[in-house]
Amino acid sequence: MVQCSGRLQCAGQPPTVAPSRQYTGSLAGVKSEAMGDMEPKSRPRLGLDEVRLAAERVSAHLHKTPVLTSTHLNALAGRQLFFKAEHLQKTGSFKARGACNAVFMEKQMNPESMGVVTDSSGNHAQAVAYAARCVGLPCTVVVPKGAPKVKCDAIQEYGASLVFCDPSPTARKETCARVAQETGKTIIHSSSNYHVIAGQGTLALELLEEIPDLDAILVPVSGGGMLAGVSVVAHLLQPKCQVYAVEPVGKDLQRCLEAKERLWPSPPVFLNTVADSIRLQEVGELTFPIICEYANHKVFTVTDEKMVQGMKLIFERMKQVVEAASGAGVYAAVHLLKDIQPKAKKTCNGARIHHQHCLRK
Amino acid sequence: MVQCSGRLQCAGQPPTVAPSRQYTGSLAGVKSEAMGDMEPKSRPRLGLDEVRLAAERVSAHLHKTPVLTSTHLNALAGRQLFFKAEHLQKTGSFKARGACNAVFMEKQMNPESMGVVTDSSGNHAQAVAYAARCVGLPCTVVVPKGAPKVKCDAIQEYGASLVFCDPSPTARKETCARVAQETGKTIIHSSSNYHVIAGQGTLALELLEEIPDLDAILVPVSGGGMLAGVSVVAHLLQPKCQVYAVEPVGKDLQRCLEAKERLWPSPPVFLNTVADSIRLQEVGELTFPIICEYANHKVFTVTDEKMVQGMKLIFERMKQVVEAASGAGVYAAVHLLKDIQPKAKKTCNGARIHHQHCLRK
Repeated sequence: MVQCSGRLQCAGQPPTVAPSRQYTGSLAGVKSEAMGDMEPKSRPRLGLDEVRLAAERVSAHLHKTPVLTSTHLNALAGRQLFFKAEHLQKTGSFKARGACNAVFMEKQMNPESMGVVTDSSGNHAQAVAYAARCVGLPCTVVVPKGAPKVKCDAIQEYGASLVFCDPSPTARKETCARVAQETGKTIIHSSSNYHVIAGQGTLALELLEEIPDLDAILVPVSGGGMLAGVSVVAHLLQPKCQVYAVEPVGKDLQRCLEAKERLWPSPPVFLNTVADSIRLQEVGELTFPIICEYANHKVFTVTDEKMVQGMKLIFERMKQVVEAASGAGVYAAVHLLKDIQPKAKKTCNGARIHHQHCLRK
Repeated sequence: MVQCSGRLQCAGQPPTVAPSRQYTGSLAGVKSEAMGDMEPKSRPRLGLDEVRLAAERVSAHLHKTPVLTSTHLNALAGRQLFFKAEHLQKTGSFKARGACNAVFMEKQMNPESMGVVTDSSGNHAQAVAYAARCVGLPCTVVVPKGAPKVKCDAIQEYGASLVFCDPSPTARKETCARVAQETGKTIIHSSSNYHVIAGQGTLALELLEEIPDLDAILVPVSGGGMLAGVSVVAHLLQPKCQVYAVEPVGKDLQRCLEAKERLWPSPPVFLNTVADSIRLQEVGELTFPIICEYANHKVFTVTDEKMVQGMKLIFERMKQVVEAASGAGVYAAVHLLKDIQPKAKKTCNGARIHHQHCLRK
């Protein structure tokens, strides 16, 4: 999806298509200011109803992941920590939530759909390929040349076809748009898509239903889909629960949040970080205003070295194989949050966790 | 414990102590032949009642571990596989089951107890230290010189004190007996102890209650405590379910089972294997007759290389950090069982899994 001004606009689908009933409900709880300067009337609104419908839509194909705890990490952090184990989600990451919701919607709303396409070589690509296979839609994934064979194999195992392109963010976006144009496939962007955001929000729905009195949720951030979905759900279900972003060095989200402006360079760039799943510097146009309104403006910035420390804690103490972005969230929850919320008792690291990084170490 | 002829005899405790009510119940289901040539009347008997009482006794201090599955591994194995995730058990392995049951019994039956002692540097040592701390008993662990610092630290974190000795099995056993003699502490052997065996049996109780129609259970074997406990419970709850041992090269259990005789050298030796938690060659005098009667006599022997393959499958596909002995069970379940049970559909790898090995790789 070449994304886009707050409307649910997908390549291969007329921009005038009626929004689904799920996205026009009057019970949507997000205040309109959350959407920034986007047209308020044509915009689908995101609230608990949408997230609950997403949860229902995807439930047959996804896991309700467990919440893990560790007395050792509690002692280290000086508070109770809860880890939503999305590395045990189908396809290995929370991305399956958003991808399934978006792809299932495509199938439901567009009976003549030619299928879906996305430009990702990582978690989102596998998630879209899996979602497409679930409902029998063709799927193409635009992959940067030089992507690890293990990732390409994993995508193809789910039945998707690959198109290679240059590795810059711009080339990937353009190639994806071209494939969509030529094949009539609908682009499923990894974060700039309300259905994806609603899908990621199901994580917070499950979490807050299981652990209702959390003081804080920490979310490693890339394009901002999970952070946006989680922020909205936490705000509506548990307003006192603060949602914090965790970022790699150089992302500079906090300054953008304070300025309420997307100050990132265009075209977007990749950061040099071990956490490959969150190396995109910019937060998307669709997610940024939501995050700006509903997430706490304190952002935790974590060096690569600290991320690896976080990963090791999880390996050694919880015996879970997680990726570096997850390590960032763990490190922040254990070591950094106490400076901000010294009295808080319960924290969840709604970490994006996947195994591929650490296997390559 | 200098072990011993089938009676529950512990150093530091008069050999004439009355067996606990748990071990004299007439409902015990194991036939007396299972005990070999040991005195039938003075011997505590092991059956479902004992295991159920053990489960009740330890429940407040242990996890009911989840059963994990993987569609990829199912496809690879050509059958449904279920993994009892004992690496997520308290202290990091199933050993906490047997240790808690034995140590809690010590506390219950011996109000004047001076505490407990064991000779292990691994999973069992941490388990006994944890169990002792749970009920406020002093604990000493006899550790071979040169044991990794991380293991010693872990044992001490649970509040146990360490006594170092030479690394041979004989020196460890003798030092343990000496400490027991000098301090009045009760020896908690890692497998030659009915309370330990009953505790390990709780694993099978949970498993078969959750997945009642298993065709087979695979158990990596060292001293045989888990294998004995699981074999008895499976036999009584689900007689058609075959329980198979999985061993490192050189253990030679199958030949001993066929001969119905413990053919291992005395003093016992350690095998040269990457699976450090199952490197003891011999199966114990107490566990062997039970295994001989209730486990299938086909034994799966797995090389170090194949164990590592099994570990990698679990890392990559299930994102769990497990030890090499677990990898042995996984490899056998995925690749070897089909030769023996081509038509079976459901298998559980009741694997002994712990993180320390793989962290050292």
